[in-house]
Amino acid sequence: MSDLAAALEIVGSRWALRIVEQLLDGPQRYGDLQRELGAPTNMLAMRLRELETAGVLYRLPLKHNTRAYALTERGLALRDAITALGRWAAEQA
Amino acid sequence: MSDLAAALEIVGSRWALRIVEQLLDGPQRYGDLQRELGAPTNMLAMRLRELETAGVLYRLPLKHNTRAYALTERGLALRDAITALGRWAAEQA
Repeated sequence: MSDLAAALEIVGSRWALRIVEQLLDGPQRYGDLQRELGAPTNMLAMRLRELETAGVLYRLPLKHNTRAYALTERGLALRDAITALGRWAAEQA
Repeated sequence: MSDLAAALEIVGSRWALRIVEQLLDGPQRYGDLQRELGAPTNMLAMRLRELETAGVLYRLPLKHNTRAYALTERGLALRDAITALGRWAAEQA
């Protein structure tokens, strides 16, 4: 499997990189993520679980039974790839 | 829509970036692409049509009724993003 294929095994689903992008600026609560992304809630929950299992993000314990998510080092390391993809779209627009 | 979301609208499907990666080294015939990627043939055909419509690749006319595909400038411009994603996977392996 190529390195790219290995990367896409983890972040190749349609929402994964957008979730990571949202968290590059800092941890976010579940509801805020959902609002920002406009993602169906069961889809978002599934992607968050997968990304947590893959070590890309982790769940922060908050008071009042609120969930929040933050990137691990591994997740933060996706910044270059996300920037490159965004730049590609912007240049071609 | 963020630049990243715009990029993923075009290359966010699971095979799209892997197809582009294969073509970064030069044009390839349909059968060779399929063999290299191990992609189901109807899936590959669909993705190639989408990427052609999006201006990422084009079809080369070959003799003997063979199809081949090559990247446009827009497709070649994905090299940075593909490299960054591959590097991310390699660093974390």
